[in-house]
Amino acid sequence: MSETGVTAPKGFVAAAVTAGIKPSGNPDMALVVNQGPEYSAAALFTRNRIVASPVKITRANAANGVLKAVVFNSGNANACNGAQGDLDAREEAEITAQQLGIDPADVAVCSTGLIGDVLPMDKLRAGIPLLAGGLADHGPAAARAIMTTDTVAKQAVANGDGFTVGAMGKGVGMMAPSLATMLVCITTDASVTSEDLDAALRAATRVTFDTLDIDGSTSTNDTVIALANGASGVRASSRELAEAILRVCEDLADQMQADAEGVTKRVTITVEGTATDEQALNAARTLGRDNLFKCAMFGSDPNWGRTLAAVGMAEAEMDPERISVYFNGQPVCINSTGAPGAREVDLSGPDVDVRVDLGTGGRGRATVRTTDLSHAYVEINSAYST
Amino acid sequence: MSETGVTAPKGFVAAAVTAGIKPSGNPDMALVVNQGPEYSAAALFTRNRIVASPVKITRANAANGVLKAVVFNSGNANACNGAQGDLDAREEAEITAQQLGIDPADVAVCSTGLIGDVLPMDKLRAGIPLLAGGLADHGPAAARAIMTTDTVAKQAVANGDGFTVGAMGKGVGMMAPSLATMLVCITTDASVTSEDLDAALRAATRVTFDTLDIDGSTSTNDTVIALANGASGVRASSRELAEAILRVCEDLADQMQADAEGVTKRVTITVEGTATDEQALNAARTLGRDNLFKCAMFGSDPNWGRTLAAVGMAEAEMDPERISVYFNGQPVCINSTGAPGAREVDLSGPDVDVRVDLGTGGRGRATVRTTDLSHAYVEINSAYST
Repeated sequence: MSETGVTAPKGFVAAAVTAGIKPSGNPDMALVVNQGPEYSAAALFTRNRIVASPVKITRANAANGVLKAVVFNSGNANACNGAQGDLDAREEAEITAQQLGIDPADVAVCSTGLIGDVLPMDKLRAGIPLLAGGLADHGPAAARAIMTTDTVAKQAVANGDGFTVGAMGKGVGMMAPSLATMLVCITTDASVTSEDLDAALRAATRVTFDTLDIDGSTSTNDTVIALANGASGVRASSRELAEAILRVCEDLADQMQADAEGVTKRVTITVEGTATDEQALNAARTLGRDNLFKCAMFGSDPNWGRTLAAVGMAEAEMDPERISVYFNGQPVCINSTGAPGAREVDLSGPDVDVRVDLGTGGRGRATVRTTDLSHAYVEINSAYST
Repeated sequence: MSETGVTAPKGFVAAAVTAGIKPSGNPDMALVVNQGPEYSAAALFTRNRIVASPVKITRANAANGVLKAVVFNSGNANACNGAQGDLDAREEAEITAQQLGIDPADVAVCSTGLIGDVLPMDKLRAGIPLLAGGLADHGPAAARAIMTTDTVAKQAVANGDGFTVGAMGKGVGMMAPSLATMLVCITTDASVTSEDLDAALRAATRVTFDTLDIDGSTSTNDTVIALANGASGVRASSRELAEAILRVCEDLADQMQADAEGVTKRVTITVEGTATDEQALNAARTLGRDNLFKCAMFGSDPNWGRTLAAVGMAEAEMDPERISVYFNGQPVCINSTGAPGAREVDLSGPDVDVRVDLGTGGRGRATVRTTDLSHAYVEINSAYST
């Protein structure tokens, strides 16, 4: 057991290697293996209709609620590679299964990186046996090996009553999940059915990864996998399990927001005063995706007018004459009109809290986390594949 | 008559002054007056639910199909100023009417600039009489006076059979119209009913301003006004009028795209192979608003994978295995897989043509014009109000 990450719970081992997929020479493959005695699994995927080959394979293999291993590569998304991509993802599962002496149908495959380049399978074929031979307490190394434009590895751990939940994740751009975000692997030594695991995972992602919106773009590869092995001997209650899984998802989501591409501000947007939570979420997302609002945040500019212009286009009922906006707790707009001192509110710190009341008197409420739109975001994303 | 702009048709005069609203000291008020003998008018407005006070006044005054004058100010949007904003916009119409000896209900008011600052009415009260006293062949000066972050004035003219259509417009950011975009004033000396004018204006905006999407943000002040006076003595046919109005709208939309905030690339996106035109438009808009796609354009990066990831989230039917993408006429993705040489396609020029076939075999088709997302866009919009 490591102190953090996917090998924190009992009965999980991991490994990482540099297979040579990334031109940088950084580690680019990882393997997480559940040593049992149980093999419950749940998985959630991108809702993009263009899905990467590993998502197709993993969706099929996770459908029966059983997974024993997850093989990861970074540096190549294996998306939009047609039949060759499907063959390659399947071969990854097969080689991994062969090395571990398990059924290929119990292996999940996750890839992340550039879309549209065929996987360098010779490198993966050489890398997988090295991973299988190096399995140990290497959760932290695995977390580093799945990074792309991430600048720090992302791990989390939550202790339940007699059981542990560990997790790793990657994701800093192309992040606008509606179901999951980028790659996340959660492990637990609690004893739990795949149904309970699935329910806990769905509940946690709904209020964590699903409300993190960095740039409005949704990846072809988003996958969140949870594995449970019962190695602690503790049968966790649904509530206990849900709480522990929520804690690691919150922790990873915080880390993803803090490491988002080009981030200089972490912006938390809460919309309230709508008829339903769904309307509030829609309005919060609309604001969180508005480039003019995001540029103003980058400039520490309390330009609340852009907040109103953005929410005015949301699919949410509102009273256009009764909207209020608060920046860092200070009123900047009351009844859709500027509040005294609004232009002087200090947004120079790294965290900005935005609260918008759409004025209908309803009890709907939702929070979305986003970031500013900075020069660095443009730089990172205009020079990524070239 | 001037050669271009709103005073190109017979019987229209205009003026511009520096009233002192803009800190820069650049011209910031304009007036366009229809000298008759007819006063047909049509107007279209933003579909944002947060609308500026001048939009409310102008919507009411244009409802009967009659307008005799339009007063403009730049440097202040008069949006989100509550009851004071409504009073101020009404007073602008009243002073203008008084100066011209007409009914205030026949005056349209247009404002553009920062949201949420109360209008400096002392400056407007002084400016309007100067405008009224300076009315002449000053269409070009009026076009300059409505500029905000525009770097060039935008005018257009189209000659029909015995009649002329002139136009001016401004708009380079907060541009994602679904009905109109920013401020546009079109004049014609054709004799035409307000109903025909309205039909021609709606048809033209649908395929011009409505498909120009710079940043996905929709203004609170968008207004497109058309005025017709019959001074040519020519009763234009519906078809002739529609063609001439379409020509000036196309011309202005081209100018707006070319002058968009921070633009280094003009990107034309055509989506086809959908069941309906509406689905194609939705997919083209989704791609045109995707920040990762726009950053790739800025980097002259033929990263077609981002094109697929973006359209995969559009509300359009597609065959995920049969999508094709062409950059500048060269295939980069066929059947959802990279085409040979895709990474070497040259996008270094200022114009990029993107064509996406969503593979359903349907005849739906739509084109949207957008721009790249550049450092300059971030710079302009993070430093705008401060």
